[in-house]
Amino acid sequence: MPDILDVLTQADQGFDISLRKLLEVIAIPSISSDPEGAPGIAEAADWLQRELTTMGLEARICPTPGHPLILAHSRPEDSDAGPHLLFYGHYDVQPVGEAEAWTKPPFAPEVIDDGDTQRFYGRGASDSKSQFWSFIEALRAWKTARARFPCRITVLLEGEEESGSESLPAFIETHRAELACDVAFICDSDMWSPDVPAITTQLKGLQHEKVTIHGPNPDLHSGYFGAVAVNPIRVLAGIIAGMHDADGRVAIPGFYDGVPDIPPALRRVWAGLAEAAHVLESTDLTGGVIEAGYAPLEAIWGRPTLDLNGISAGNLGPGERSVLPGSATARLSFRLVGGQEPQRIRALFRAFVTARLPQGCRAEFEGSEGSPAVVTPLDNPFMQAMSQALNEEWQQETIMKGSGGSIPLVQLFQDRLGVPCIVLGFILSTDAIHAPDEHYDVRRLQKGIRSWVRLLEKVCGLAPGAR
Amino acid sequence: MPDILDVLTQADQGFDISLRKLLEVIAIPSISSDPEGAPGIAEAADWLQRELTTMGLEARICPTPGHPLILAHSRPEDSDAGPHLLFYGHYDVQPVGEAEAWTKPPFAPEVIDDGDTQRFYGRGASDSKSQFWSFIEALRAWKTARARFPCRITVLLEGEEESGSESLPAFIETHRAELACDVAFICDSDMWSPDVPAITTQLKGLQHEKVTIHGPNPDLHSGYFGAVAVNPIRVLAGIIAGMHDADGRVAIPGFYDGVPDIPPALRRVWAGLAEAAHVLESTDLTGGVIEAGYAPLEAIWGRPTLDLNGISAGNLGPGERSVLPGSATARLSFRLVGGQEPQRIRALFRAFVTARLPQGCRAEFEGSEGSPAVVTPLDNPFMQAMSQALNEEWQQETIMKGSGGSIPLVQLFQDRLGVPCIVLGFILSTDAIHAPDEHYDVRRLQKGIRSWVRLLEKVCGLAPGAR
Repeated sequence: MPDILDVLTQADQGFDISLRKLLEVIAIPSISSDPEGAPGIAEAADWLQRELTTMGLEARICPTPGHPLILAHSRPEDSDAGPHLLFYGHYDVQPVGEAEAWTKPPFAPEVIDDGDTQRFYGRGASDSKSQFWSFIEALRAWKTARARFPCRITVLLEGEEESGSESLPAFIETHRAELACDVAFICDSDMWSPDVPAITTQLKGLQHEKVTIHGPNPDLHSGYFGAVAVNPIRVLAGIIAGMHDADGRVAIPGFYDGVPDIPPALRRVWAGLAEAAHVLESTDLTGGVIEAGYAPLEAIWGRPTLDLNGISAGNLGPGERSVLPGSATARLSFRLVGGQEPQRIRALFRAFVTARLPQGCRAEFEGSEGSPAVVTPLDNPFMQAMSQALNEEWQQETIMKGSGGSIPLVQLFQDRLGVPCIVLGFILSTDAIHAPDEHYDVRRLQKGIRSWVRLLEKVCGLAPGAR
Repeated sequence: MPDILDVLTQADQGFDISLRKLLEVIAIPSISSDPEGAPGIAEAADWLQRELTTMGLEARICPTPGHPLILAHSRPEDSDAGPHLLFYGHYDVQPVGEAEAWTKPPFAPEVIDDGDTQRFYGRGASDSKSQFWSFIEALRAWKTARARFPCRITVLLEGEEESGSESLPAFIETHRAELACDVAFICDSDMWSPDVPAITTQLKGLQHEKVTIHGPNPDLHSGYFGAVAVNPIRVLAGIIAGMHDADGRVAIPGFYDGVPDIPPALRRVWAGLAEAAHVLESTDLTGGVIEAGYAPLEAIWGRPTLDLNGISAGNLGPGERSVLPGSATARLSFRLVGGQEPQRIRALFRAFVTARLPQGCRAEFEGSEGSPAVVTPLDNPFMQAMSQALNEEWQQETIMKGSGGSIPLVQLFQDRLGVPCIVLGFILSTDAIHAPDEHYDVRRLQKGIRSWVRLLEKVCGLAPGAR
């Protein structure tokens, strides 16, 4: 085993600067789904292009019909031989959501000592700025310590992950030659627990839908018309109430077509993991209706869901307004498994809603293209290298896990680039991702960087074209 | 019949100025239920106090724990003998609501020729600034034409009607002597149709409630937790869906206790009116579930309702956010009839919700004090005078009608001041009150002023103390 103490030492010595720079980029409000986020997106893209250039990559901002990607390559003359590695991350973040629910500012991170742990708070702190920052800083440490990169490197940072990655498929299609590589590392997943690393080998598909029920009238006075005119809130509530049955199953006809049983062997593995599942310990599941016949971990990793993400109609406050609203809107998402095809699920959903509309009402739908579920191959040298690197850094056996989350580009990379994807990351389900007071901690950032250094060391000796 | 052509002519000659001034006060955003409305409330109160003073009343702004009332009296030396009349209106307005749904600015009214009709648009245009303005301008015309008021006059303008009139009961209690009068005219109700005047003789009670369902967790990532943790949107939708049965009846146990049958004689009168009911023609009732066994007008005027006014949770957009919200909120109101007691209804509602909560969830409630239903006496000379004045101005028989709306202060005035209330007004259910593009028209304003002039002429000859 070649000694990489020099690179690890370099990473540790440079860590204070690494952390300071990360806080700088977390402070940039790069919200992709809100039109008002555009200046933050542009500022973050500029900042990242400068950083990647400074550390020795050839980096450029690639415009798209949506938000730009940042694409960076190591120069051949700076790169040792070996396989070509692609590292993917996303620099856009979720909206702040309910601002009053944050106890820390969402875009002014500083390190706060919470007793045992040094944390920093901010939208994007865990999802996903600390994630891509960990491989960037590992690459920088290697380049600084050894004056060259360990092999050919491509870094791809996306700006639309939180808003549906709409520009990514076309970008990959038109840049297939430039993105050619031997493996893609997707750093956007979570650890098993604060001390146990994990690689995510199966992810759910995702289909967003927004439905607005329109009554035949505009807003009306609820006193005058409440007794006689249709109330879209009641219609929508009735439809939502019928979307699940008493056993927690989705009640849309045909929804489970193409959903495979969880293989008994996998059920046994997951049963063994369940006891130590941090995700289950950290969250109060009281009141939740888990699909009958499945353990919590099985439901999260292996069963499709319909999740209500938002609802709005009429008077949102403050104060009272005696209105009978003209329309009511729900936002929801499907998490898909197996062969569930997003467009088919969308059609089933829309038919389900439409069939339940009272006369005089109509439903208006909006939905993203959606992505199917994905399983990554386990039998390749990069997967072994990653697993070993994590084992060594964390001194714990890496867990091969499923996820309730979705990373649509995994399927895209595997299909269009024809390379294995390795999905991992160092966030935790307790980091309040997509929620108020999102945060990350200093220790995981440092050990994340060191994990990538170890990975580089293990793969740079592999032959080009190894799969 | 004494000739009042001089006063009517004065009102018509001054009408352009009347209209211009009305548009001035509609332009002031006096929203009472929104804390940000306070400056608009203060500006409107100042403006009105100046106007009432200019026209010869002794007017002052009366602070309350909430928003101020404006109280104005004619000076005894300026007032002819006869009964003491109190005129009530409210100068506060509803919130704008969904700003994008307005096609005209809510606080920049101008007269627009819509073909047949000259209209002006704005929040408060119909509810209720044009309403109180009609009696103010009638009083001004009388004073201008005859240099004196026709009898003793009190004007009371409230600033909290749209936010629950919370300060009014205590104000009336502490100002009983000063508010002593022979009759109260409440100008906050509607006409039967654009050409047929109406007096509203029964109004519904009103009880607002806001309920928030809290799950045991804050916002969560819906991918990670959607399959296992409780979703407050689903809980709330299920509870709402259960609030009505298939026959359109409110399904809260005990809700109909104390609700009287509509007397057969009244049903016959209402059946005769139904055919010409403008409120029913103007609105598309398709899809609405009217309580089984009742005609639309009976349901609106005579049956209690539970109306969903608003709902909100999780992602309100724009854009997608894969969140499992920590809580979900509904705003609703009860319209009460007969002996339904608001506090009892509130308790029944809260028990209904609480009984349906999954383990681990809790409900947080907020509610106003509420008001019971009210019926005004028909057998007094003021009611006859009002009816005749309206008949003469509109050349149509005045309709004695019910209402689906609520004016809590009617009960308050009748109980605490011990005087009959006469509830009328010139708005229409098609004026988009409480809705986007609220509006009123020039003809109704002018004929409204003239109606009050005729009323003044009919009552000023009555003896003081006439009831």
